[in-house]
Amino acid sequence: MSYTSKLFPEEPAAPSVVTESIPGPKGQEAIKTLGDVFDNRCTYFVADYEKSTGNYIIDVDGNVLLDAYCQVASIALGYNNPNLIKAARSDKMIRAIVDRPALGNFPGADFETLQKDLLKHAPKGQTHVWNGLSGADANELAFKAVFFNYQSKKRGFSKNFSAEEEETCMLNQAPGNPEIAILSFKKAFHGRLFASGSVTRSKPVHKMDMPSFEWPTAEFPAYKYPLEANAEANKQEDARCLAIVEDRLQNWKCPIAGVIVEPVQSEGGDNHASAVFFQGLRDLTLKYGAKLIIDEVQAGCGGTGIMWDHERYNITPPPDLVTFSKKMQSAGYWFHDPEFIPNMPYRQFNTWCGDPKGIIMAAAICDEIKDNNLLEPLRETGLYFYNQLEALQTKYPQFITNLRGKGKACFLAFDMPSGEKRAEFLGKMRLAGINVGGCAEVGVRLRPGLIFENKHVDIFIAAMEKVLPTL
Amino acid sequence: MSYTSKLFPEEPAAPSVVTESIPGPKGQEAIKTLGDVFDNRCTYFVADYEKSTGNYIIDVDGNVLLDAYCQVASIALGYNNPNLIKAARSDKMIRAIVDRPALGNFPGADFETLQKDLLKHAPKGQTHVWNGLSGADANELAFKAVFFNYQSKKRGFSKNFSAEEEETCMLNQAPGNPEIAILSFKKAFHGRLFASGSVTRSKPVHKMDMPSFEWPTAEFPAYKYPLEANAEANKQEDARCLAIVEDRLQNWKCPIAGVIVEPVQSEGGDNHASAVFFQGLRDLTLKYGAKLIIDEVQAGCGGTGIMWDHERYNITPPPDLVTFSKKMQSAGYWFHDPEFIPNMPYRQFNTWCGDPKGIIMAAAICDEIKDNNLLEPLRETGLYFYNQLEALQTKYPQFITNLRGKGKACFLAFDMPSGEKRAEFLGKMRLAGINVGGCAEVGVRLRPGLIFENKHVDIFIAAMEKVLPTL
Repeated sequence: MSYTSKLFPEEPAAPSVVTESIPGPKGQEAIKTLGDVFDNRCTYFVADYEKSTGNYIIDVDGNVLLDAYCQVASIALGYNNPNLIKAARSDKMIRAIVDRPALGNFPGADFETLQKDLLKHAPKGQTHVWNGLSGADANELAFKAVFFNYQSKKRGFSKNFSAEEEETCMLNQAPGNPEIAILSFKKAFHGRLFASGSVTRSKPVHKMDMPSFEWPTAEFPAYKYPLEANAEANKQEDARCLAIVEDRLQNWKCPIAGVIVEPVQSEGGDNHASAVFFQGLRDLTLKYGAKLIIDEVQAGCGGTGIMWDHERYNITPPPDLVTFSKKMQSAGYWFHDPEFIPNMPYRQFNTWCGDPKGIIMAAAICDEIKDNNLLEPLRETGLYFYNQLEALQTKYPQFITNLRGKGKACFLAFDMPSGEKRAEFLGKMRLAGINVGGCAEVGVRLRPGLIFENKHVDIFIAAMEKVLPTL
Repeated sequence: MSYTSKLFPEEPAAPSVVTESIPGPKGQEAIKTLGDVFDNRCTYFVADYEKSTGNYIIDVDGNVLLDAYCQVASIALGYNNPNLIKAARSDKMIRAIVDRPALGNFPGADFETLQKDLLKHAPKGQTHVWNGLSGADANELAFKAVFFNYQSKKRGFSKNFSAEEEETCMLNQAPGNPEIAILSFKKAFHGRLFASGSVTRSKPVHKMDMPSFEWPTAEFPAYKYPLEANAEANKQEDARCLAIVEDRLQNWKCPIAGVIVEPVQSEGGDNHASAVFFQGLRDLTLKYGAKLIIDEVQAGCGGTGIMWDHERYNITPPPDLVTFSKKMQSAGYWFHDPEFIPNMPYRQFNTWCGDPKGIIMAAAICDEIKDNNLLEPLRETGLYFYNQLEALQTKYPQFITNLRGKGKACFLAFDMPSGEKRAEFLGKMRLAGINVGGCAEVGVRLRPGLIFENKHVDIFIAAMEKVLPTL
């Protein structure tokens, strides 16, 4: 019996849509009244999480939807997973809620165990972790680590700052606050605060009107699909993009201390890159003294069929920092070089220094994945899913192009002919019982949980077969 | 029977220090092994949260300390508060942990109620809330709201951006990413990310080596104490500081869209200001078209004997945004002007849009404060505490000066003659059974929970009587 069947015996056999629109009357009313106390213009529907189970999200109208979006790739193991409920009801969780510690100043006796439970699941080559609260927070904490390291190295890891540095940093001026940059890629998404927003390059609405750091961008490979038929062109694309990175590292107006990259650009359109590109990037960062940060916020924690997507590229040496959040229900960055521990205390620091609640859940989720060997069947389901979608791409080439993500489990995407058609498709899929999301201008991204099975693929594909001819 | 006696019948009658140093042997060993998996150079001791209760924090050596620091002002209602444990064990909490929603896209059916439960406790004049994850996050979200509002107003709240704005913002350049500022005060502390770090002005170690926005500072009043004896000089200090603010608003090199200020500068030394200063600030922001953000992260949620410290100044009209975190176990900003809801969706947005776990706890904590009328006895305890400290100040003028915070419950502070003496005092107080913290260079800040009573004051004062003569 599969993990899903065992843990979710009451999972519905199929979606069920009982209202003419989603949201239906109850959902519309709920959205209207919620609007009085929350800016809910982005709300698709109001969910009934009490009733939702496994791969199915149920809304307040009683519509039962197969969820291939999972809270923007954040629910790993299904709704109301009984094993996670156990972790949530544990005494250590209750204590983490009621007596939330300032982990830097007054860590609890169980914190060492929590950290070790988390570190068991670190990417290969990473031995340390620093804890944060969200993907944006994790990335900005990683930037701090990179900047501290870069400047400390310049002053020979001295424990003293110069008087000029101390004075100028209080005025937000160099040399205390140096002009120094993180390089990111066009179409990248790394969060929406001010430094994370500065490296995010997805859409104007994510960036408009925010003061930002004028940091450099390079280009992420834009491959031709299918990959097998376009190997030579894609190889040239890698070389073109790496040359741009090298140009920036050589010629940008200020030092580039770090490079941040997603293993798959998700919000920006599910853009993949090759092992050659990632190793090239690693080599360039080493050549020019920049640190390599891999943002595994969306792809990490099993989403692509392995725990950390970048591991498939065998990047050597491993990336300097790897950030995580979303499915982990926690956030932070992994690292291995002890030089990322700042040269004096209270530099990488804040009141909470992370959240034990999140760490408990992250470890519980990762243990569950490992103990139940969930990624092996997920990879098989992904291949099955890919093949079904490929058949649909052949049948409906006017609607489906650039199918991508092969071999990355269910972390799949394809393009539609226009933003309008994509919106129509997503809306009709929802009415056909499938919750699925978009990315970039015309992409559809599949982000089911790690417990998605062939039977769910069949339901998804049947809905597409129903919807596509009506576009 | 008092709330504290009722809820914590097993609270120790007095501190008990059983090891020669704190940390003792077990604590030292715990710190050593924790150091393998966490940068714990800031750790004072390792706590046993299972055993801690009410006002007492207990460490792994069995030392029982009266806690007047409370996780940097973050534990409002005592350790292992049974009523909060109930909230933590509730089904809605367990669901919030296991099925954490993307609140913007897929809010749960209970989210409207959660928001309303939270909004019941908003500062006077504030009607809306936007949720975040930490104090730094709350402040940066508030900055985004202010910047969006400022630029939207410039374009007449049009729903369109210009082509030039869309192009330039993707390059992190004006006009899409304008040069536009938040003004903050010297010695302010508002967080340690990049925009919050830019307005933080507490210590070089909080800011060094981070790229920052070159935003303006003004001066926060530095009063002479006791206030009664220095009324005229302090009035002039208000005028001097307000003149600097006006100069910045008039003459800074770029537009100042907002001013952020703490009701009490806490990390920066427990610096207080008058109603005249705060109203003057409000008037200046109105005169020059800047928004006023009050950072209630440390003072808010009852710490000063009223729910929101700035309310005592009757600032008219109320501040535009008020940020919160810490004791709320949640974070975000309150506001009342619907113009702070951005002119289009997906601008103030991220995957999680807050955390229902935190909202549940925030509402539970605030309900508990209100339903049990905890702030009235706290204010009395604060006066009692102040009077005792004033007597000590008279007795030991060589050690205690600038006693401040009268009338703000137990949110009290005083200065010691030097950083060295302060460190000696804090260490000896811990060995005398009291956990208490510092602020700025020579300050000692008292941050007990809201359940501190006269009997705890007596214990605190007795420890001081014991320690001071040994300095």
